[in-house]
Amino acid sequence: MKKLAAGIDIGGTNTAFGLVDREGRTVATRAVSTTDYPVLDDYIDMLGATVERLLAEAGADSELAGIGIGAPNANYYNGTIDNAANLPWRVVIPIVERIKARFTGIPVVVTNDANAAAIGEMVYGGARGMRDFILVTLGTGVGSGFVAGGHLIYGHDSFAGELGHTIVIPGGRDCGCGRRGCLETYASATGIRRTVHELTGSEIMPSVLRSVPFSELTAKVISEAAAQGDPLALAAFEKTGEMLGIALANAVAITSPEAIFLFGGLAHAGDLLFEPTRRHMEENMLYNYKGKVQLLPSGIDEGNAAILGASALVWDSING
Amino acid sequence: MKKLAAGIDIGGTNTAFGLVDREGRTVATRAVSTTDYPVLDDYIDMLGATVERLLAEAGADSELAGIGIGAPNANYYNGTIDNAANLPWRVVIPIVERIKARFTGIPVVVTNDANAAAIGEMVYGGARGMRDFILVTLGTGVGSGFVAGGHLIYGHDSFAGELGHTIVIPGGRDCGCGRRGCLETYASATGIRRTVHELTGSEIMPSVLRSVPFSELTAKVISEAAAQGDPLALAAFEKTGEMLGIALANAVAITSPEAIFLFGGLAHAGDLLFEPTRRHMEENMLYNYKGKVQLLPSGIDEGNAAILGASALVWDSING
Repeated sequence: MKKLAAGIDIGGTNTAFGLVDREGRTVATRAVSTTDYPVLDDYIDMLGATVERLLAEAGADSELAGIGIGAPNANYYNGTIDNAANLPWRVVIPIVERIKARFTGIPVVVTNDANAAAIGEMVYGGARGMRDFILVTLGTGVGSGFVAGGHLIYGHDSFAGELGHTIVIPGGRDCGCGRRGCLETYASATGIRRTVHELTGSEIMPSVLRSVPFSELTAKVISEAAAQGDPLALAAFEKTGEMLGIALANAVAITSPEAIFLFGGLAHAGDLLFEPTRRHMEENMLYNYKGKVQLLPSGIDEGNAAILGASALVWDSING
Repeated sequence: MKKLAAGIDIGGTNTAFGLVDREGRTVATRAVSTTDYPVLDDYIDMLGATVERLLAEAGADSELAGIGIGAPNANYYNGTIDNAANLPWRVVIPIVERIKARFTGIPVVVTNDANAAAIGEMVYGGARGMRDFILVTLGTGVGSGFVAGGHLIYGHDSFAGELGHTIVIPGGRDCGCGRRGCLETYASATGIRRTVHELTGSEIMPSVLRSVPFSELTAKVISEAAAQGDPLALAAFEKTGEMLGIALANAVAITSPEAIFLFGGLAHAGDLLFEPTRRHMEENMLYNYKGKVQLLPSGIDEGNAAILGASALVWDSING
């Protein structure tokens, strides 16, 4: 029998499914519109039915090793999704219990997307064989998963790993969380847009970005300009790398990882982001960490990353 | 047989020994001058002989469960003390191997003082039963030990847990480590002295501390003035609490602990320190942690803390 883990990524718009083997090969996938299921019971039935259908597609020699679920506001310890603002049902969903009711005797695990991505990196990606590393997701916001001694740090309440909401500049930029100076306000796709606009005001250097309205300014547009040598776009990456470098240097002083993996939209900028980040991280690290922490791009294919991360929860839970 | 753990605290001036039972009761203690042993081999012989002598004193029904060692620059993974600047022998000492050669078959563990203090807190102190907490030592410097999921975070190279060298204020105060703005420059016994002198310059409020020379200004003198309502001393505690509160809020976002324990000289100031620290920590924490993290004084008796911490390494290693 071929053992397969089901990975389910629950998002506000879509729910993605995949059956994945121990080596990270995706055997079958499916995507369903989350908003088609305003009634929670119907949605849960659909989750179970879809996993069963994929398993049938995978063939008679396939066996379900477990189900891993990535979801916003997921509580790993309770196995619940707690009042997630961008899902249609604003309640506490005992998702693990509900799924186990249909699939008796197999492991079912839920956690948030960044934690799932970190475990995906450990099980299938660049962190294979590592026991201490950090994964940072640089998207609209900044998420993170910390692995110490081979185990993800969930913390007391399962809400550990909010690197994006560590304060880099006390009294700095206004953050959506209600505070000021959070890393997320600088080192996310949104953050670099804000940096470009700030620099547009403070600096007189020429830039093609001066003619791009804020609503059309994306991390991709900024990356393309920087790749062409646009000085303002390059200055924006420098600032982003500085803020990210300081925050990573502080994180290193707490968990002393072997490597830090960057994942998501902004990480696609490659050396435009990695070079200044690495430089500022090294500059701001305590001497005994200098030159010892690798800064690497994620080794997980981004297209399937959410499914892979969710499925990796199963293999990780089986390994203990 | 009564099982006892030996705790050895290796310091530049003194080496302290204790035999401690599983409940943290100290059965026998000894202190030896470290500087009396310029030759390393003699020192190692003395360590073994002293443990054997204490064991004999403890009585025939006593059995050695293991030896725990707290030391500067200790490498937990390698079992070594690496070129510690304030010990007489500036070499890599394979301390675990050397001690095991004399005490075959029993566990021998070495780690640094702050890590040992954290494990002491978990085994005997206020963190009994907790799986996620932080211990912060506020002495001449700031040390820390992070426990996540019931295990101390050692990190890739065993040098994790340097909260004192996270940067709170980028470009801030000059630190002995060669960087600027480290927590240690604000929230240590030395840091609060620097704050008093800064305030003496920037503020015109009256203070008894204006007539105390820097060389005589101690955390104790500042605490006593603050307890009498001295406005400058109170302002210094406010600033200390602000810096510590920000750094703790950032640490909470990474490991989400159930509690944070403060230990050491500055923590003796009690509410003078705890009140502003708690207030600034709450103010600077992300909403989902607010009101959930206890800030507590260490539950370990400070007189024997180093021995207790070192001995606790044994019980922790036996429990796995």
